[in-house]
Amino acid sequence: MAKPGIPKGTRDFSPVEMARRNYIFNTIREVYALYGFRQIETPALENLSTLMGKYGEEGDRLLFKVLNSGNFMAGLRAEDWNEEKLGHLATLLCEKGLRYDLTVPFARYVVQHREEIQLPFKRYQIQPVWRADRPQKGRYREFYQCDADVVGSDSLLNEVELMQIIDEVFKRLQIRVCIKINNRKVLSGIAEVLGAADKLVEITVAMDKLDKIGWDSVKDELMAAGLDEQAVEKLQPIIELKGENSEKLAVLRDWLSTSPTGLLGVDELAFVFERLEKAGLQNCCELDQSLARGLNYYTGCIFEVKALDVEIGSITGGGRYDNLTGIFGLPGLSGVGISFGADRIYDVLNQLDLYPAAIEQSVRLLFINFGEAEADYCLQLARQTRAAGISTEVFPDSVKMKKQMSYANARNVPYVALVGADEMRDGTVSLKDMVNGEQKTLSIEEVIRLISENA
Amino acid sequence: MAKPGIPKGTRDFSPVEMARRNYIFNTIREVYALYGFRQIETPALENLSTLMGKYGEEGDRLLFKVLNSGNFMAGLRAEDWNEEKLGHLATLLCEKGLRYDLTVPFARYVVQHREEIQLPFKRYQIQPVWRADRPQKGRYREFYQCDADVVGSDSLLNEVELMQIIDEVFKRLQIRVCIKINNRKVLSGIAEVLGAADKLVEITVAMDKLDKIGWDSVKDELMAAGLDEQAVEKLQPIIELKGENSEKLAVLRDWLSTSPTGLLGVDELAFVFERLEKAGLQNCCELDQSLARGLNYYTGCIFEVKALDVEIGSITGGGRYDNLTGIFGLPGLSGVGISFGADRIYDVLNQLDLYPAAIEQSVRLLFINFGEAEADYCLQLARQTRAAGISTEVFPDSVKMKKQMSYANARNVPYVALVGADEMRDGTVSLKDMVNGEQKTLSIEEVIRLISENA
Repeated sequence: MAKPGIPKGTRDFSPVEMARRNYIFNTIREVYALYGFRQIETPALENLSTLMGKYGEEGDRLLFKVLNSGNFMAGLRAEDWNEEKLGHLATLLCEKGLRYDLTVPFARYVVQHREEIQLPFKRYQIQPVWRADRPQKGRYREFYQCDADVVGSDSLLNEVELMQIIDEVFKRLQIRVCIKINNRKVLSGIAEVLGAADKLVEITVAMDKLDKIGWDSVKDELMAAGLDEQAVEKLQPIIELKGENSEKLAVLRDWLSTSPTGLLGVDELAFVFERLEKAGLQNCCELDQSLARGLNYYTGCIFEVKALDVEIGSITGGGRYDNLTGIFGLPGLSGVGISFGADRIYDVLNQLDLYPAAIEQSVRLLFINFGEAEADYCLQLARQTRAAGISTEVFPDSVKMKKQMSYANARNVPYVALVGADEMRDGTVSLKDMVNGEQKTLSIEEVIRLISENA
Repeated sequence: MAKPGIPKGTRDFSPVEMARRNYIFNTIREVYALYGFRQIETPALENLSTLMGKYGEEGDRLLFKVLNSGNFMAGLRAEDWNEEKLGHLATLLCEKGLRYDLTVPFARYVVQHREEIQLPFKRYQIQPVWRADRPQKGRYREFYQCDADVVGSDSLLNEVELMQIIDEVFKRLQIRVCIKINNRKVLSGIAEVLGAADKLVEITVAMDKLDKIGWDSVKDELMAAGLDEQAVEKLQPIIELKGENSEKLAVLRDWLSTSPTGLLGVDELAFVFERLEKAGLQNCCELDQSLARGLNYYTGCIFEVKALDVEIGSITGGGRYDNLTGIFGLPGLSGVGISFGADRIYDVLNQLDLYPAAIEQSVRLLFINFGEAEADYCLQLARQTRAAGISTEVFPDSVKMKKQMSYANARNVPYVALVGADEMRDGTVSLKDMVNGEQKTLSIEEVIRLISENA
């Protein structure tokens, strides 16, 4: 029989991997809670009508669709079975799909529950999402997102606090990062000043390539996109803009002086940077005028986080959107959010080996099983150690000592208790420290004290 | 525009609901860990070949199947579009499905990762499962299971520890329960003694109805199932068996004296009950000879938990299976497990109102926003309270005081800080205790001390 497998792009997580992932999730969760964000969950299954049309044509194709239960052919006509109109047929066969991100379900949630929600609504959500993307290294079809959003407040203090959250999370995880910040209004202003509002995408794509391909190639790309020589020359100082955030802001404010939208963006960035300076962040925050972010629903500040010590794409991102719930019939609610990329953060921590050693010592004490009478006796001792909060196992089978010790080693157990006839008679425990190999004869109360003190 | 909704049988969980659910999940998680169980996760998407044929015909129909991505019509012939053979067509359209429980994915996991696993393997898993069941009160299409299993050990000490875990979890949750225990070998023995091994299902179904329909109706059912008068009379004392566990065991041992299988089952039960008596459980453990459990893969002890103070079905169940991984080509591995029904436990806690009050106070301190300068100042104070581990919010907008206070009330915030021009000048905080309405002028250090002491 062939070894069973799992669908490509999906993963099993072993106990060690889960301990590491929980370390990441718990860190994020704790910091979100420290800032007053509260957790919600939404179902994995959403109506396709909720999901379709929200992620572009490509996104619609990448949605996992769930076959209707019961007679999924009921009501279909022969002409519906048409390979040319797969998308249409799919919506006839499937009413439900798996969520693609946490943002659209959140928008749906806010609209559906608007009467119960107190604004501003600060929620976080840590759940898997599914995308029928081609799997490749570091890209999965099922992966977790860790989002926090505030809706119902257009105060830029929310942006400031989200940056503080990012800083605190990476400080706790001991990952050195740079937080890059830009503003979509600045980008719109740039295109506006150039008289090329329709070429915003091409301009930002080209700007982002400066470090990789150099100015001459960027220039070629911009010309190919339809900008004239004069516009490209005007743009050069913006693309090559370097220096302190305050210097960049001064240049942008000057350059964008004819664009009210652009100036508003500069004001927003100035407000945020001014407060971040006072906030004493541990990581750097940098105005990156080439930062665009893929999704086009952002309308204000946008963020992205780069790890400094590992070559990897952005490990966190986010931004402000002014009308997320509008697609579900509730216009006028502004929101801002961030999303930690748990899988990439996991890769970074693995590469830098930054996990605390304790997270892999899940069991603190193992009682060796010398036979039925001894095991019964140990069961009683284990009740006491567990009551003291010590994670304890009694080896269930009285197999060879060597096998039980190799289990203890594989499980990374720091203390092993050997209780045979002598110990039972004397009311003692022979406790072996698996790290230094020392063995001591102790009372169970002393065992509890010793292990608790070394936790 | 119509209010958006979610698929029937699925649920959103609000912050309050999540706090309550996390209280349940964390309690279960902590107790599992205390007994040395370690967490794994498996993907929501499994290959349909892994899932099909594992839950009976009905189960196959209730699996949610995921439409193949890309051209799902490729390779299909006209005759495949046949309403008479929906099941076949579904497997052509869908290679993947959503997991139906955590047991089959666990068996698959053990076989797939057998080289990495140290036996006995004690794992727990808390994840959602999906079933295309008809939704009804208390039955959902997407719901969480919380399983713990040990595979690779046939020691009955595992059964004993799992009962201790059940007892501990419900003790911590303050739910009074009765743990019912039976053994499939006893049931097989009963059918064997009656010479009706093929009528095991009918016999157990009828036995289970005694309390509801009385002996005469049970008798009618047994006769209708094909048992003769003599067999039914022989069975009566077993069906009506009452008393202490030791008394029941004595009667069963006598009654089953001609069935080696039945006697083995009695021995297993005796072993477990003897140790449970010494374990000092808080809740009762009762031999229930009518307990059968739906799934037919159990081969040894079986368990079910009933809440004593709420009318509801079983809230936890489990049992021993001798060959779970055999279906994936790895025979001979015995296992035993339990599964907490989180949704029913949630209903029980709601009905009895047993949640600790603290779980709904997610934010401890809210700074009122009196304007830009005050908010900037409060941002600095909030850095200090957060550094002290106090979950803190600064209201992001300087809207009317009344609105901010009503937010504080809705969020159940115990302390509100008012910092205006006077407080900024004096370096103080006016702290309002939202429970007793008292207001004090304090330094930020005093605020931190006061809130920390009242956590």
